[in-house]
Amino acid sequence: MSSTDQAIDFRTAPDRYRHWRLSVDGPVATVALDVDENGGLRPDYELKLNSYDLSVDIELYDCIQRLRFEYPEVGAVVIASANDRVFCAGANIRMLSGATHAHKVNFCKFTNETRLSIEDATDNSHQAYLCAVKGSCAGGGYEMALACDYIVMADDGATSVSLPEVPLLAVLPGTGGLTRVTDKRRVRRDRADVFCTLEEGIRGKRAVEWRLVDEVVPRTKLDEVVAERAADFAAKSDRPADAAGIVLTPLDRTIDGDTISYPHVRAEIDRANRAASITVSGPVGDVPQDAANIHAAGAAFWPLAVARELDDLILHLRFNEEEIGTWLIRTEGDGALVAAADEALSANADDWLVRETALYLKRTLKRLDLSARSLFALIEPGSCFTGTLFELALAADRTYMLDGQFEGDNRPPATIGLTAMNFGPYPMGNGLTRLASRFLDEPDRTETLQREIGGGLEAAEADELGLVTFIPDDIDWEDEIRLAIEERAAFSPDALTGMEASLRFGGPETMETKIFSRLSAWQNWIFQRPNAVGEKGALQVYGTGQRSEFDKRRV
Amino acid sequence: MSSTDQAIDFRTAPDRYRHWRLSVDGPVATVALDVDENGGLRPDYELKLNSYDLSVDIELYDCIQRLRFEYPEVGAVVIASANDRVFCAGANIRMLSGATHAHKVNFCKFTNETRLSIEDATDNSHQAYLCAVKGSCAGGGYEMALACDYIVMADDGATSVSLPEVPLLAVLPGTGGLTRVTDKRRVRRDRADVFCTLEEGIRGKRAVEWRLVDEVVPRTKLDEVVAERAADFAAKSDRPADAAGIVLTPLDRTIDGDTISYPHVRAEIDRANRAASITVSGPVGDVPQDAANIHAAGAAFWPLAVARELDDLILHLRFNEEEIGTWLIRTEGDGALVAAADEALSANADDWLVRETALYLKRTLKRLDLSARSLFALIEPGSCFTGTLFELALAADRTYMLDGQFEGDNRPPATIGLTAMNFGPYPMGNGLTRLASRFLDEPDRTETLQREIGGGLEAAEADELGLVTFIPDDIDWEDEIRLAIEERAAFSPDALTGMEASLRFGGPETMETKIFSRLSAWQNWIFQRPNAVGEKGALQVYGTGQRSEFDKRRV
Repeated sequence: MSSTDQAIDFRTAPDRYRHWRLSVDGPVATVALDVDENGGLRPDYELKLNSYDLSVDIELYDCIQRLRFEYPEVGAVVIASANDRVFCAGANIRMLSGATHAHKVNFCKFTNETRLSIEDATDNSHQAYLCAVKGSCAGGGYEMALACDYIVMADDGATSVSLPEVPLLAVLPGTGGLTRVTDKRRVRRDRADVFCTLEEGIRGKRAVEWRLVDEVVPRTKLDEVVAERAADFAAKSDRPADAAGIVLTPLDRTIDGDTISYPHVRAEIDRANRAASITVSGPVGDVPQDAANIHAAGAAFWPLAVARELDDLILHLRFNEEEIGTWLIRTEGDGALVAAADEALSANADDWLVRETALYLKRTLKRLDLSARSLFALIEPGSCFTGTLFELALAADRTYMLDGQFEGDNRPPATIGLTAMNFGPYPMGNGLTRLASRFLDEPDRTETLQREIGGGLEAAEADELGLVTFIPDDIDWEDEIRLAIEERAAFSPDALTGMEASLRFGGPETMETKIFSRLSAWQNWIFQRPNAVGEKGALQVYGTGQRSEFDKRRV
Repeated sequence: MSSTDQAIDFRTAPDRYRHWRLSVDGPVATVALDVDENGGLRPDYELKLNSYDLSVDIELYDCIQRLRFEYPEVGAVVIASANDRVFCAGANIRMLSGATHAHKVNFCKFTNETRLSIEDATDNSHQAYLCAVKGSCAGGGYEMALACDYIVMADDGATSVSLPEVPLLAVLPGTGGLTRVTDKRRVRRDRADVFCTLEEGIRGKRAVEWRLVDEVVPRTKLDEVVAERAADFAAKSDRPADAAGIVLTPLDRTIDGDTISYPHVRAEIDRANRAASITVSGPVGDVPQDAANIHAAGAAFWPLAVARELDDLILHLRFNEEEIGTWLIRTEGDGALVAAADEALSANADDWLVRETALYLKRTLKRLDLSARSLFALIEPGSCFTGTLFELALAADRTYMLDGQFEGDNRPPATIGLTAMNFGPYPMGNGLTRLASRFLDEPDRTETLQREIGGGLEAAEADELGLVTFIPDDIDWEDEIRLAIEERAAFSPDALTGMEASLRFGGPETMETKIFSRLSAWQNWIFQRPNAVGEKGALQVYGTGQRSEFDKRRV
């Protein structure tokens, strides 16, 4: 896109929500879906029956983030519907049928990340999510429920849960539904097969017996029972009842031509090479080292500010700059200050706000892992690839580190540095740290590397330790980087996406990686097949009264 | 297809091989690739440079099977090339560019299964595979090497290993290459990224340093070193030096209209419903219970005969009957005799031939799990879903068991039975037994179920134990089955493929399941994308001198 097109903006705040109502009552919050039919991203569809498009999910994502940071006292969150008839009809079908392939895929990826952030809140922020289902809960609606740890459903004729994508739309439930049915709720596979082919879904006691929901109650009792269960979950939380939240102040972003700037993150787009140069700045001045000062800094606390800015930038580039296929990741600043910030994160790990900040960084780094872009880290003099920021290099597909200095530049040679933050707090989706994922051949290597914590490693040393890919010197640097960028731009973007998605996740798979690999890859395929998106495909003819026509061959 | 079309036949034998030379020298066998350029399946391409199509892989598969059964004395197998210039150029590109999407996908699946059978031979048959690489070893050629446990490469200017699919063809290495590079050989991910984008590949010491091969030796020493290594591997094998192999006699198959018959397996195709009814017959008469008699029976030993026939039938239906989307699985015979056969397998598990037979059944059942067809098991009076044959029901997406008898049929109600063979010898690709995969919610359930070994379970009991999906009675049976079949035929074949591939493999993922889920699903997607298969896609323009044109958007 050029800078004059209408970009999708991920920045929002509760006073601008059109689709959700957030209410907080002591330790329990309720997030109620009340979709504004005319509030979608595009004018060519109406979001009927509490169906959603990206605009709905952007608000949900914002809301989940704010609950973590702005409401420390909240230990349980109930996802509910403000519509009495329909809990949620899932992703809007007219939106899907009119969307480009890339938008569909990116949309599913973002909604998946948001569902996983709900599970991360439950598991690691100790802000547990429950779901109160009344009315039809279909497709993406049920997938939202599945992201919650406890599902209570009204026991009446109008309420059911369903995954009708296969029978109705010839696509898959694309937001983790299949994976969570088998791997999280551990529904027996033959029952899952029946459930996923049953347009009308399952209600009442059978839904409990089949493990699809946790509890059914008479509709008149739903609110009461949900309140009880939420209070029980909240009582088990370790979140502080009396702490003050911080405010996630509006993100300060400027888009000026091909430059996107935030206070600590900057991207410059080189359209000729279809590359973006992303520079993350280290802290300027002292980083607060104790909880009181960290809380006082609030959203300005450097690690939190970087997490938010980078998160927003990644989403912006994913959705609005599809042709920019290579992201060159740089840092600038003082590695010692980054190490000090990491020390603040480690030393105050028990503080709720610091915990949230580290979790946010973890999720943002995972978002980078999942971005369908080639990632090259460039480590040059003046950079600060230390600790948390070295994770950016570890997330990259490859890393170039200048050996020595540039001619005419008297800054000292670049160094990289490890901190305790490289050894645990930022696991990838596969459950391993990026260092452990890197050294699958040698599980002891991460122990050896712990001895390097604190020191600055120059290129030769970093290479010796296996921490960087190439260490060209001043003479070769420019050509080598240029050729690598040009080469990448010449390859098929699709082939790169499939290759990177395979090579980045060696070793174990988890429910999370299964959602993004097995499920999403199959869905991407199906989203490309004529049976779904062809002229007579099910997504296209839905709602027209026409019957879809399928190619009957099994592939 | 109609029965008059030219079907792909998977039955072959060494005296008919056109592409491989098998030689056996005591405990070491050599399988040398020497592709007949004009021996491909279709006349519109020549298999130059030791490139392959399905015809080459059918022979390799046959050869691997025969080495297991016909050569008990062989403890190590060397895969080599009879072409001095080229080890193997991988899958033939003109074949790929001219193939239907379904054929490409099925071809990759079969070659993947064959590579995994090489690893199964190494790990479980103790017939270790080594690879001797001289000349260019590219793409599928290197993926064949990767399936071997030890790779020796000539150290000369003409020899290299490469995965040039992404830079050259805009597709992925589709036969496990990416997964084996990261998960089997544990190549560092940034090096893997470089390797997989390097058209010319990597040779010499760097290939060893990057863990891409195990050893490089001067070309003049290659044969000598490989022979030494092979002898070492063979010496560690537990295969008997002095046993006589059995002969895998030609499979007796008849195709008559829509009926495909083997001695113990029969399929009838119902084209109106796009369904095939597959019936497996239990043993007739006594099953040999001791090793001597089992050896004397040879290929007629019932479990082995069933494994071979079912294997061939699955492959036939996959490749030649693409529109037949539902397989109805039935059995007929005496469950007690199946239990006796299973007892023979369990009691003689240490015998090399019995071990091979159980491993073959394991692989055939895995092939069923991986078949992109809906699988319904129908358990009726006269059936023998016991032990090994009950695995067919456990592999099914759902199971219908008649509760009681059919009117006018005085056979006793159907029963199912468990044997020791249900509790270990036939793991799925995910490493779990089918029973454990079924009861992910309750890992202790398999222990409880062991108490049921030996008894015949009628419908109500089987249902109570969670072993079947539905137990309609005589009155409902016909309608319920008919509706289920019709419903399945109405769904999008693609959506079913994606759904079944997700629901069948709950729980852990392994390198094997990663190859079929993460890698294959991405490859299927890419095989559908214009950048690969469009008019200007890389697969289409390869060799024409034209440049491919890519859609630059990242998805």
